[in-house]
Amino acid sequence: MSPFKTTIPLSLSSQPLNSLKSDEAASGPKQGPTFQDGQRRVDYVLTYHVQKPQSVRRKTSRFADYRILRSLRRSLSTMRSGGTPPSKEDPEIAAHKHRLDYHEDDKRFRQTEFEDNLREVGLELEKDEGNKIPGIGFLKIHAPWNVLCREAEFMKLKMPTKKVWINLFIHKVTAPLHPKVEPNRPQNKYFLLKRTRCTKAKYTMGITSLLGNGVYTAAYPLHDVSILPHISIPMRMLLSFLSCRKYFGEKIGLYFAWLGVYTQMLIPAAIVGVIVFLYGCATVDNDIPSMEICDPRNNITMCPLCDRACSYWKLKTACGTARASHLFDNPATVFFSIFMALWATMFMEHWKRRQMRLNYIWDLTGFEEEEDHHRAEYEIQVMQKTLKKQDMSPKVAHEVKGFLLSFPLQIGVTFAVVFGVILYRISIRAALHMSSNPTARSNIRATVKGTAAVINLVIIIIMDEVYGAVARWLTLLEVPKTDKSFEERLIIKTFVLKFANAFSPIVYLAFFRGRMVGRPGDYVYVIGSYRMEECAHAGCLMELCIQLCITMLGKQLIQNNLFEIGIPARLILLPFLFSDYNMTLERHEKDHFLGPFVGLSPEYMEMIIQFGMVTLFVASFPLAPLFALLNNIIEIRLDAKKFVTEVRRPIAARAKDIGIWYNLLRGLSKVAVIVNAFVISFTSDFIPRLVYQYMYSPDGSMHGFVNHTLSYFNVSDFQPGTAPVQPMHLGYEVQICRYKDYRETLWSNTPYDLSKEFWAILACRLAFVIVFQNVVMLMSDFVDWLIPDIPKDISLQIHKEKILMVELFMKEEEGKKLLRDNHTNQSPFQPRSRPASHTPSKF
Amino acid sequence: MSPFKTTIPLSLSSQPLNSLKSDEAASGPKQGPTFQDGQRRVDYVLTYHVQKPQSVRRKTSRFADYRILRSLRRSLSTMRSGGTPPSKEDPEIAAHKHRLDYHEDDKRFRQTEFEDNLREVGLELEKDEGNKIPGIGFLKIHAPWNVLCREAEFMKLKMPTKKVWINLFIHKVTAPLHPKVEPNRPQNKYFLLKRTRCTKAKYTMGITSLLGNGVYTAAYPLHDVSILPHISIPMRMLLSFLSCRKYFGEKIGLYFAWLGVYTQMLIPAAIVGVIVFLYGCATVDNDIPSMEICDPRNNITMCPLCDRACSYWKLKTACGTARASHLFDNPATVFFSIFMALWATMFMEHWKRRQMRLNYIWDLTGFEEEEDHHRAEYEIQVMQKTLKKQDMSPKVAHEVKGFLLSFPLQIGVTFAVVFGVILYRISIRAALHMSSNPTARSNIRATVKGTAAVINLVIIIIMDEVYGAVARWLTLLEVPKTDKSFEERLIIKTFVLKFANAFSPIVYLAFFRGRMVGRPGDYVYVIGSYRMEECAHAGCLMELCIQLCITMLGKQLIQNNLFEIGIPARLILLPFLFSDYNMTLERHEKDHFLGPFVGLSPEYMEMIIQFGMVTLFVASFPLAPLFALLNNIIEIRLDAKKFVTEVRRPIAARAKDIGIWYNLLRGLSKVAVIVNAFVISFTSDFIPRLVYQYMYSPDGSMHGFVNHTLSYFNVSDFQPGTAPVQPMHLGYEVQICRYKDYRETLWSNTPYDLSKEFWAILACRLAFVIVFQNVVMLMSDFVDWLIPDIPKDISLQIHKEKILMVELFMKEEEGKKLLRDNHTNQSPFQPRSRPASHTPSKF
Repeated sequence: MSPFKTTIPLSLSSQPLNSLKSDEAASGPKQGPTFQDGQRRVDYVLTYHVQKPQSVRRKTSRFADYRILRSLRRSLSTMRSGGTPPSKEDPEIAAHKHRLDYHEDDKRFRQTEFEDNLREVGLELEKDEGNKIPGIGFLKIHAPWNVLCREAEFMKLKMPTKKVWINLFIHKVTAPLHPKVEPNRPQNKYFLLKRTRCTKAKYTMGITSLLGNGVYTAAYPLHDVSILPHISIPMRMLLSFLSCRKYFGEKIGLYFAWLGVYTQMLIPAAIVGVIVFLYGCATVDNDIPSMEICDPRNNITMCPLCDRACSYWKLKTACGTARASHLFDNPATVFFSIFMALWATMFMEHWKRRQMRLNYIWDLTGFEEEEDHHRAEYEIQVMQKTLKKQDMSPKVAHEVKGFLLSFPLQIGVTFAVVFGVILYRISIRAALHMSSNPTARSNIRATVKGTAAVINLVIIIIMDEVYGAVARWLTLLEVPKTDKSFEERLIIKTFVLKFANAFSPIVYLAFFRGRMVGRPGDYVYVIGSYRMEECAHAGCLMELCIQLCITMLGKQLIQNNLFEIGIPARLILLPFLFSDYNMTLERHEKDHFLGPFVGLSPEYMEMIIQFGMVTLFVASFPLAPLFALLNNIIEIRLDAKKFVTEVRRPIAARAKDIGIWYNLLRGLSKVAVIVNAFVISFTSDFIPRLVYQYMYSPDGSMHGFVNHTLSYFNVSDFQPGTAPVQPMHLGYEVQICRYKDYRETLWSNTPYDLSKEFWAILACRLAFVIVFQNVVMLMSDFVDWLIPDIPKDISLQIHKEKILMVELFMKEEEGKKLLRDNHTNQSPFQPRSRPASHTPSKF
Repeated sequence: MSPFKTTIPLSLSSQPLNSLKSDEAASGPKQGPTFQDGQRRVDYVLTYHVQKPQSVRRKTSRFADYRILRSLRRSLSTMRSGGTPPSKEDPEIAAHKHRLDYHEDDKRFRQTEFEDNLREVGLELEKDEGNKIPGIGFLKIHAPWNVLCREAEFMKLKMPTKKVWINLFIHKVTAPLHPKVEPNRPQNKYFLLKRTRCTKAKYTMGITSLLGNGVYTAAYPLHDVSILPHISIPMRMLLSFLSCRKYFGEKIGLYFAWLGVYTQMLIPAAIVGVIVFLYGCATVDNDIPSMEICDPRNNITMCPLCDRACSYWKLKTACGTARASHLFDNPATVFFSIFMALWATMFMEHWKRRQMRLNYIWDLTGFEEEEDHHRAEYEIQVMQKTLKKQDMSPKVAHEVKGFLLSFPLQIGVTFAVVFGVILYRISIRAALHMSSNPTARSNIRATVKGTAAVINLVIIIIMDEVYGAVARWLTLLEVPKTDKSFEERLIIKTFVLKFANAFSPIVYLAFFRGRMVGRPGDYVYVIGSYRMEECAHAGCLMELCIQLCITMLGKQLIQNNLFEIGIPARLILLPFLFSDYNMTLERHEKDHFLGPFVGLSPEYMEMIIQFGMVTLFVASFPLAPLFALLNNIIEIRLDAKKFVTEVRRPIAARAKDIGIWYNLLRGLSKVAVIVNAFVISFTSDFIPRLVYQYMYSPDGSMHGFVNHTLSYFNVSDFQPGTAPVQPMHLGYEVQICRYKDYRETLWSNTPYDLSKEFWAILACRLAFVIVFQNVVMLMSDFVDWLIPDIPKDISLQIHKEKILMVELFMKEEEGKKLLRDNHTNQSPFQPRSRPASHTPSKF
């Protein structure tokens, strides 16, 4: 790698520029969409509404994408809906119409001012009003060559990286050799749009506020026609990150890069997960506890699992569940969850390195995030408050109030969600129990098992949409200052809510269901007659697995793929059905029918929830990475297709990193350690088995473990009204039945109290959690420390550039000295001369 | 704050430069030490040995400070010591002399080459050989003005910060207004020395290698005479960080800034600690358990604490210890350790912000660490290996081998240290027990208590020195590649060893002593007859407190202050005793007698160990922050005095941060959380009390707690040979005695087994650890997230600079445009004319 390759990016990145230049020089019709003259390329399109007041609102909401100024709109709609339908031309409606006209005039006024300002900075505009699509006007924008050059220079000034410094230096040194060739970035033009503002109206407004206000309805660059014909290969294009970044900008490029790294990293995890699962399958026949359960010679009579309705049952009927749960509950799972904790750390490290490499390749090392402008809504609200003459400094008051208001609400909503879902489940169960139909009652278990997971899934998917709106509402309450902080807060809130939504049933199954249910004859009831849900023998883990499996498969299949393919497809198909009509449309009109690009948040969110599934409960479901991998392979392709063909071309934005998502990932991988520790020690039977083997087993084997876990119950101890209705269900009278719990024996002083074994095993479980958490955290930190953040070759490259720079400096310094020396020798009487230094020691 | 204040640092930072300039312009004798001509200031001094071969070695080792090339020296010493003392001029000695002469010639050759090279880069030199101090030659170096200017520009090139960029820009724009004034940094001259190399010899050698090889014996800048007379106010000077940084450079400036922040932050911690302690004092009379112990009506007979030698004793004799331990073991301690965990996080955050602010004020925001040159020893070793023609790539092989060798050694040494100290303690105890003298035996407890902590302290202090050497040896084994990695590895190793040294007795006391001692009649013995140490009733915590107190006070008093004041003072006093002689010495000769500056590692190490004491065991010793605070107030002053008067002036070095020390601090504050969790739940009685109160107490109060913690022992169950020799010690025959443990009662099926209460309390202890650790970690992360890393005013300032830059750009851009337009309009044929600007839009 020659250092010159990277130090002279002028020649490298000038490629798109050269093509643009030659475009401009060439005559005849262009490849891309152009102005009417067929010469000037359309770089950007603004759409606006052509005078039809009654549909302003619907059209506005299309692009505005919730960022519209709600307060203004609300006042508008209040104005509009005068209470009664406009039956007659009464004075109120006339006044209303007048106000509407005033509003429209105001819009037109701003539009004109903005367009004038755009022309002033050197952009060229062309209007295309309502020829083919009624009611929609298009403002086509072309950025001429000299404007782009100026912007390029401006961009450089904004990111004075070392590289740029070198470039400037080389440029200065080698100036006579180069004509005026500057690197061109497609997003430069867009910054001009962002900087241009309307100042004559009451508030200063940039393009964002103008869009929010409905002055313009949409703003988008056009899809590249030269790429669109090859729609069949968008994935390949997007998978090669370099071209992806050129077409969409660094921000979307980083998303695909991240998705790529994540999917790559899932491959080893999926392989190890499958091996762990296969190990479970292979050892299921050697598992002594499930052999004991299935052995018909161990004729153990179990106590009824609920009061009255349930009856005694044979332990060997739980044989299937016991064998199945061994698949997910074996020593290999412990290894796998340690592996996955380290995997998560490795993934974060790997991504950091990849990000650093991309930053270097994409020349972002010195790039700093754009300064954020205040959100229009924030400024308006602050202004309103100021007008109301509040005592406190309005900005501070606002932020504090917003936070105070939304933080407890956020916590409240989250808890309400979690408890709501659990209560719902309990009540569904209770309702089914109430059913007096004996057939229904006997089918309860099957019914519930079959439906619960599916119902859960449906609830999750519906609530997901609801929570998106709740998060937005909460964030609006806070009135964040800038667009960036708005986005970050919205993401955090959406994440917390969606996460609680997706994981509360799983957490409930893993840690709460089947605990504190009481014992036969003394089952625990909450809120009157709702029983705490119990698990089948060794069944909680199985149900957890089923839930995880259905959630992962179902959520991904239904939500992502159906929603992602189905809905946008419908949106596009509608106008495209009239294909003749379609053929006559120009590029900017076609793009108008595509859905707006709503940002990367939904894509990231989906992946983060998936990452949570993969890392958090991996101890109970080792196949999760495999499912995630399969989903992602499809996902990358769908996302790529969507961005190229189904939404308007997003504005290329620069970004150095994936922002807050990295922190969320990091948080998740930390939480994963403790969650896995609890799953292993509390949900699985790992610890009780170990304790039995090393503390209680007479011969150090697992034989007798099942017997050890079962306590005795004397049927004469049933409380009145709790004994089973059908005591002869099994065909014989039961004196003593068994139940799974560690309680004192019948012949102890305190029967049915928690036994010493219970406390010993609890202590061991907790000790395991402490050891597991700290060991894994230590190992993660060690891995983190071991892998350098900057890849070796990149740091070498940077080092080489530094050396080159020093050499260049030295050469220039020598040249200067020579010049100076010559100068002094020749003309000693000229003022400001600096005589060459001769040290006395040399004489 | 005007943005101009910071954007034009040319005028600000040119102050030292101006003074220097006027110095140069002024005639007559200078304030500072100068060359013989009285004109040129001595900027730097190199000392070398004037031809006296027999003392080369001693002198060399003075500065070389272990970084000398051991391999070369070893070969030299092997050459020198031919086996027998040189009694006669036999051929072997002649050959030896010849080799020595050759070696000296080689040195002189290099010296000459190096000096020529120095002259070549523009430095001026003057020699001062053996006038007053026999055998020592001084090479005085002066950096002329133009060299400094060039270096300043070079420095700027090496850190292309945004600020520098602005400066360049402003400089370009306003060039005609400013004469050639460049910011000057004193360390610039020293970089020249570092860059200059000898290339003619076998290996390329810089100044470091030349020093290591003994070509020069020392290299130091001179103390500023204008400061030295005011020795009485060095603290004030150093406490104002700005001047400290000017005199010593950013690296030492950062150390004092860090020490200042740490000391400031200790103030609230000390106050809260004292309040917690006072709370303990105030509530000691209301503490029911200690009241019960002290109550003479509770006539409880306790079992002997050891076999045979000990006898029965009354519980009320433990009254004093019980009351004392309440001072350190009360609910306020739990609050305090949570407080201190958050305090540690706050401290780290506060320091990050301060560092960021200093970086901004000191204009280091874009500064990058100097590229590290390979250590001379590394290169030589690699060269030797290459000569031996190894198969593997020598560099990789070396690193791997070094790591493989030193990593297990490091772990081995650390464990050996810990177990060695514990074994030593046990055996001391056993030896005292063995003593047949009954008086001695009865005084055992008092003797051991009194001496153990002091002995420990002495061992710690002695071992501290040993471990420094061990760490260095281990690091040399690894052969790190660069000076920086050498230093980092050395620091980590030293840290681990010194930390293990300082904390192993404390950890032993807190978590191991008094556990697993067995029970009366069945005490546990390790390795034959060594008993595990037991604690007095409620005594382990007290002993821990005493140990912490003595370690903190003693270590700080003896090691730091005595060593720091005492030893260098002796070194200085020796030559200064001849005060007439002293008066005639010049500055560079005086500085020669001062100790070399050995880096900041010892200072940081001391503070980190103290930080560990303050955070790790704060749950058992709330006064630790107070002690630390008092020590640090002295420490800052001593360190400042030391750097100004007792060691040679350190070479000013730039640094952006405190480097690896930050990571160590962060690691410590993480470990502190878990250690405090364990101290609270296992060392203190907090959890057993809570459990008793809420699970076992009949009336919800603490009454009966002491009885609950004591198990019963039937004296007839003593194993043969374990019963006390003096059973009638208390004056009556004992049937049943009590001992502090949770074990089954005498009338249970399994007497003396661990009881259900034991396991329940153990589970609660462990649950507390999990809850405490995760809650505190969460709170720490929250605090970390809440406090922004960059202070608000600094980020505002940076933002303002950005705006200024954009404005400047816009202005220049406008100017350019005007020029261009005019050029085209007015004189298309005249080349390069620049008429006054009239824009076409104005026509």
